[in-house]
Parts: sequence; C-alpha cells; structure tokens
Amino acid sequence: MRCRDGELEVVRVLIAPLPNSIISEEVSELPLDFGGVMGDRHHGTTRPSDTRQAGFYPRGTQIRNRRQVSIVAEEELELLRQAFDLPDLRPEELGANVLVRGLKDLSAMPIGARLLFESGAGLVCEGVNRPCQLPVHALRARHPGAGLRGFVKHAFARRGIVASVERPAGIRAGELVRVHLPDVLAPPRS
Amino acid sequence: MRCRDGELEVVRVLIAPLPNSIISEEVSELPLDFGGVMGDRHHGTTRPSDTRQAGFYPRGTQIRNRRQVSIVAEEELELLRQAFDLPDLRPEELGANVLVRGLKDLSAMPIGARLLFESGAGLVCEGVNRPCQLPVHALRARHPGAGLRGFVKHAFARRGIVASVERPAGIRAGELVRVHLPDVLAPPRS
Repeated sequence: MRCRDGELEVVRVLIAPLPNSIISEEVSELPLDFGGVMGDRHHGTTRPSDTRQAGFYPRGTQIRNRRQVSIVAEEELELLRQAFDLPDLRPEELGANVLVRGLKDLSAMPIGARLLFESGAGLVCEGVNRPCQLPVHALRARHPGAGLRGFVKHAFARRGIVASVERPAGIRAGELVRVHLPDVLAPPRS
Repeated sequence: MRCRDGELEVVRVLIAPLPNSIISEEVSELPLDFGGVMGDRHHGTTRPSDTRQAGFYPRGTQIRNRRQVSIVAEEELELLRQAFDLPDLRPEELGANVLVRGLKDLSAMPIGARLLFESGAGLVCEGVNRPCQLPVHALRARHPGAGLRGFVKHAFARRGIVASVERPAGIRAGELVRVHLPDVLAPPRS
C-alpha cells in the first residue's frame, strides 16, 4: 500500500454501462467530464429528481446531478461482507465507480470534502450513498443461499459516498488521493 | 415578517452585471439557470480556478463553478455595520445576489444544506463566502472617512454564503425559503 495517513489509494475503477443494471465493470481508466463518468448510467450534468429528493422537488424535475460518481472503500465492504457472511462482496454489485483503500470511515466524509487525485482529477463529496435494494438483487443472483435480510439497513454509512466532478481527468488504479476537508470559519471574537 | 422559525424570507434580489465590478444592482426577479444567475459576473457552469483553490489546482484551471450565487443576511450585515460604525451597509457593495432575513447565523450554514424557495428554485449551500478586499474598496468610495481597517478579517463568517443552483427558477423579494440540512447517517450499531 502506497498511501499514508489521510490519503487514499485507488484500487480499481469501474463503469456501469447499462441504464437498467446496477452492475459496473472494471476499466483501465475512468474517463471524467463535468457530467461525471463518461459512459456510465449516472452520467449527466442534470438528471430527473427521484425519491431521494421527495419533499424537495416534484418527482421527475430536472435538477443538477450531484451523484455522478460512486466511491466505495475496501475497509467498509469487508465489514459488510463479514456481517452477511458472504465469500466476497464486489464493488461491481454496488455499482461503484471507484474502489479505494486507506480510510476506515469513507462513508463519514463530510459533504464538500475534496478528493484530489494524482491524475489531476478533483471530486467533491456530495454525501453518503443512501442504500437501495439493487445491490441485494445483484448479490442474491450470485449467492442464492445467502441471508441478506437487513442488508439495506446495515449498508447505511458503509456503502461509501457519491461525488461530483470539480475538475475532470482520467482516474486509474494505483493513484493516490489526497482528501481536503472543507473549511469551517468561526466568526471573529469581538 | 412572514417567515417562521427555520425559515428565511427574501428581502431583495440583485445582479452584478459588470465583469470588473463587485457592485450588484437590485432587480425585480433573479433569473437562474444551471450556470447560476443569468447576467451576473459569476454566471457559468464552469470557471477558471483562482487563489481560493490554490493548493488544489493550478491557477486558471477550468473547474465546476460552485460559487454561482451570493447570499447575505440582514442580521449579519447589521453586525458588520455596527462593528465599523457605518451609517449603512448595502448588499450591493458585497456583490450579493440575495438578501434574506430570519436567520441569525446564515454564514454558519453547512455545505450541502438546501435552500428551497417558494418559486420552486433550489440552491445548495457551497460554504461561507470567503471575504476579499473588493467590498472595502466599494465601501471606501461611499464612506471616505470610515475606518475600515480589519474589515476583511471581521467579515469572516458574517459575509454570508455562496450557493449553486440545483433547480432553476426566478426568485423574487417576499418569497419564503425553507432550509433543509443535509442528512448525517450514522453507521448501524452492531
């Protein structure tokens, strides 16, 4: 492992090419533009709002796309794998675009944190990836006997983060990632 | 005042039309698209990075524009006005696009908070507006005798926030604004 404390290392990069399938596939380079991952089902500078924005906008409203890139951590996938006694848990089955290692609590990263890649790519954390049922279906297909009851609930805050592109570049396995937390400015004492 | 606890009310909306001047001018409606305020000097889906991103990107790198809209609060402007014993302090001189009232600590709003306007517009808080020297020049022109030493430092966390457009609409004075703080998801207890 190349990364030091406070740094991440990219382990794999993946694209989910099919609009109706969560499954992502490993690629040699993750091509980014301001719409996210080119060729991925979540690509776009805007997108229709879904149930996650219920209460904010009528469903189907065109809104800025803040969930362009899905990032998961080896450390958290291992916790999930153990919790459900699975032989393995692949980032493909979570539709992840980037698998990283080096941080115990990726999912706790605050909104606004920057992920700065060696390639020059810059992503902005847009918050935890709220779990859905799709990974359960994908896992069940490969592990028909697995007890996956409670997976969605258990995956809360272990399912990584979603991010948007601040500066596009191509991301590759082996790159180091520097994490920069957002400034918190206190008012002056007066 | 129409707004209740946790709500804001739009007092004025303004556009800064000149690329080289911070001064904004009151308008009857703030026209938004996914690039921000149409006709404003900060409009754009992308922009070249500046000194605020030094350490992240080489200066002049094209990055996503996260500081599209500047929002200030009457309550914080009044604190600043009093601190420098000014007869008045206009949002125009801070280049603000939206003046609101109803919240004591607008500048403490966390990144990722949503501002949901009655018109349907949705903005995302991108953090505090880091003060610069430009308002000092604008204030000095109108108040030649004022002691403005320390204004920049004092304006930290009283100068409002910058925001990006999640859902465009036209914003008008008198609208109420609902603030929705970002979810913080704790991992399950196991």
